Amino acid sequence: MLIPIDRQAGTPLHRQIHEHLAQLIRREILADGERLPAARQLASEIGVTRSTVSQAYDGLQAEGLVRTAVGAGTFVTRTGLAPAPPHRIARRAAFDWERFLADHAPTTEDASLGELFAAAPPEGPVINLLRPIPDPALAPVAEVRRTARAVLQLLDADALDYGSPWGYEPLREVLGRQLATEGMDRTDDATLLVNGSQQGIDIIVRTLVAPGEVIVTERPAYKGALRVFQAARAQVRCLPMDEESLETAALERTLRQDNVRLIYVTPTFHNPTGATMGPTRARAILELARRHGVPILEDGCFRNLRYEGTPVPALKNFDDEGLVIHLGTFSKTLFPGLRVGWIAAPQQLAQRLSLARHDMDLGSVTLAQMVICRLHEQGEIARHLERVRAVYRARRDALLDGLERHLPEPVQWTRPAGGMSLWVRLPEGLGSLGAVRRAAGRGVLVAPGSIFDPAGHDLDGFRIAFSTAEAPDLVRAAAILGKALREEIDNRQSHVAAAPRLPVV
Amino acid sequence: MLIPIDRQAGTPLHRQIHEHLAQLIRREILADGERLPAARQLASEIGVTRSTVSQAYDGLQAEGLVRTAVGAGTFVTRTGLAPAPPHRIARRAAFDWERFLADHAPTTEDASLGELFAAAPPEGPVINLLRPIPDPALAPVAEVRRTARAVLQLLDADALDYGSPWGYEPLREVLGRQLATEGMDRTDDATLLVNGSQQGIDIIVRTLVAPGEVIVTERPAYKGALRVFQAARAQVRCLPMDEESLETAALERTLRQDNVRLIYVTPTFHNPTGATMGPTRARAILELARRHGVPILEDGCFRNLRYEGTPVPALKNFDDEGLVIHLGTFSKTLFPGLRVGWIAAPQQLAQRLSLARHDMDLGSVTLAQMVICRLHEQGEIARHLERVRAVYRARRDALLDGLERHLPEPVQWTRPAGGMSLWVRLPEGLGSLGAVRRAAGRGVLVAPGSIFDPAGHDLDGFRIAFSTAEAPDLVRAAAILGKALREEIDNRQSHVAAAPRLPVV
Repeated sequence: MLIPIDRQAGTPLHRQIHEHLAQLIRREILADGERLPAARQLASEIGVTRSTVSQAYDGLQAEGLVRTAVGAGTFVTRTGLAPAPPHRIARRAAFDWERFLADHAPTTEDASLGELFAAAPPEGPVINLLRPIPDPALAPVAEVRRTARAVLQLLDADALDYGSPWGYEPLREVLGRQLATEGMDRTDDATLLVNGSQQGIDIIVRTLVAPGEVIVTERPAYKGALRVFQAARAQVRCLPMDEESLETAALERTLRQDNVRLIYVTPTFHNPTGATMGPTRARAILELARRHGVPILEDGCFRNLRYEGTPVPALKNFDDEGLVIHLGTFSKTLFPGLRVGWIAAPQQLAQRLSLARHDMDLGSVTLAQMVICRLHEQGEIARHLERVRAVYRARRDALLDGLERHLPEPVQWTRPAGGMSLWVRLPEGLGSLGAVRRAAGRGVLVAPGSIFDPAGHDLDGFRIAFSTAEAPDLVRAAAILGKALREEIDNRQSHVAAAPRLPVV
Repeated sequence: MLIPIDRQAGTPLHRQIHEHLAQLIRREILADGERLPAARQLASEIGVTRSTVSQAYDGLQAEGLVRTAVGAGTFVTRTGLAPAPPHRIARRAAFDWERFLADHAPTTEDASLGELFAAAPPEGPVINLLRPIPDPALAPVAEVRRTARAVLQLLDADALDYGSPWGYEPLREVLGRQLATEGMDRTDDATLLVNGSQQGIDIIVRTLVAPGEVIVTERPAYKGALRVFQAARAQVRCLPMDEESLETAALERTLRQDNVRLIYVTPTFHNPTGATMGPTRARAILELARRHGVPILEDGCFRNLRYEGTPVPALKNFDDEGLVIHLGTFSKTLFPGLRVGWIAAPQQLAQRLSLARHDMDLGSVTLAQMVICRLHEQGEIARHLERVRAVYRARRDALLDGLERHLPEPVQWTRPAGGMSLWVRLPEGLGSLGAVRRAAGRGVLVAPGSIFDPAGHDLDGFRIAFSTAEAPDLVRAAAILGKALREEIDNRQSHVAAAPRLPVV
């Protein structure tokens, strides 16, 4: 028990100890009946004589706050307790943090999401299709337990020390082999392990992009990346997508006009749309990036969640000159709780990233990386992936069926070949918030377009994440969304035509 | 095995598969004798027909790169192997990352440390006194193994999902009780768990300090914090310390002159000096901060490593209006490998910090926090702390004895009552690099003054970290340092008097 002592105060030590303990008893931090440390022990812990502590205990006893049972110790008792002020500190005018933080620390909380939860019926079932994350019900808990138990046999002092900012070496090797097998390794690339791909985006953006510089990405864009761009005080240009990815004409225009520092794309099973970039587009975008000297951050977090067709090459597969930084993670294919992702980047850059990463948090939890490594070596990750791909494929199919049956005429949607979400395109100018709120009121939560715009402007579309809901719920959700959309469209048509909004995706 | 396939290319699928596998065999990513997946299995994995895969395998066999043993499978063989280009990619002119990164991404590597390691004798023992970290030899490996095994029984799908950006709730409660027991809780404070206190500094600085704004800290300063300040593009003012902490007169002057956003201090067992701030100074600094409306970040990472005297109150103990953000960690008292630290901050600010933290890496490893929590509940942390305090106290004493015996007259040093390091003060104008290099050449590594200055200017002092070396080595190191210092001083006196340098600490 660490009792702070003010040796510069006039108050005697025993009195300070007495008063500190009395406070803890009054505030019930020390509970009724709880035993205080023996005087000798407390004395040694806080560096005073035993008699000083005894004097303090005597004082507490006189006050009726403890009682001493000879041979058993000193116990808290509340008999002497007058009603006491509930809090330790008589607050002066508190520091005005709101004012201090105004103009700083952009608030990144999404008001619109809170609003949706509030709109959902307080009782009755809610179908939450907000998050493209692994279904926790599918988490391989038993396999992780078994594997982690085996890993604990290998735990040594090294694993409890600071790790390398590059990550756990055996897992780096595993990933290196995997990248090589997929033809994604360049001889002068290096692999860096991070706390999930979100930290990867953060490290890369902080290293490459100074405040005010320009980042290009898709519209709609992945919100987690937008938040990183905002925290880095970057300017963001969201360019229109077609069914594959960024439109090359728009990209070329922007690269010509702006001094772009980074292109951030998710070429395979894009979040939110599920769109996938074919090899021709990949080559075209790489060629533009090369010509303008702009690196590409390729977010591959959904890459392995393919439900049909053949594996599509990554941008990294075509990266002849080391322009592409590839980002991967175990969070989507396996589970996110061990926080392991990776960056494959040209060695020169990787070196800088490892320094930046060291400065941010001095490295990852070695034990977590050991568990992931062992799961990989035992084939558990491949087995798990096969299992969940079948489940998510069936959920996607159920959702697509439901949408086909229930969504009204003018509404369209993407048909992703993988990933965890699709995008519903609404008639131009409709916006998403009206329909999304109506659906929330009926217990179906989907992510409104505003989430996917850097300024939070609504878009004419919304995201449905299908990975965590079972097929019947997805069909039910489609019916409710269909109803909400019909109402919203009817309602709009009965009013004056809305002003044009941001371009439709 | 994920083989990327370009459906837009003219090359037939079987040919693409053939060529990809041939590459893997040539590059020995597939080893001699390794078995390829059965055609049926690979076909299903990559979404092609079985006959496509068989055709690819036939092609490889014709080329002499695999052989098929009927009933046993297809195996890699290197008989058909002509000498092949070692690398997958015919590199075009590689992207010039050095140029791209110039003016960005401050290089935070310490050239001076690399130089020291290079100066140390390649053979023969090196006494490394560079790092104030727990001695890995003292890590409670068996206790962690036992505890983690017990924790794995509780592992569930929740623990494998994303955690709250606030951290694992039961551990937050444990820390809340601990802060209350030490009288450091304010009723409107909240506790936030982070990946070690380094991430805590990073989150706080990114949230509070915009590029170009001013942070005040000590000279010499903690290097890990300086690096965060640099990454945030803040202006840093290092103010002189006396034997306790920042000098109040200098602080007051700076608060008047500059628009200071944050004061960063380590009041208890400061790194590098080991200095500790008494209650009178604490109140004075708080009063100055209050008057100028500047929050204080109190780094308490060494607080519990006290070797003598009574527990000293933290700044947080006097924080009436919620100006103090207190930072703690298990990395110094226990071990750093599970990456758990905490922030105690006023609720309004803590809310913002949790959002910023979410955007940085979506939260910590739940399993790691569960293990720390259980270690705490079982009293392992308290027991470990008692054990290591005795060891580190003995090491400090040995070092102090050695310095007393061996350092020459004009040299002085601090006598820390806790922590893991002390500071050797050199005569004004001497600088540390000369002596530190001489000592390195004789196998003793200590951290030169330049490490503790934001611009990397040398200071007239160096740090000795005593936590990881045994007593006899510390005495030996003191003797070698004494010799190096005498030589350096003699050498300087025989030259023209050096120009004045930065003020001595």
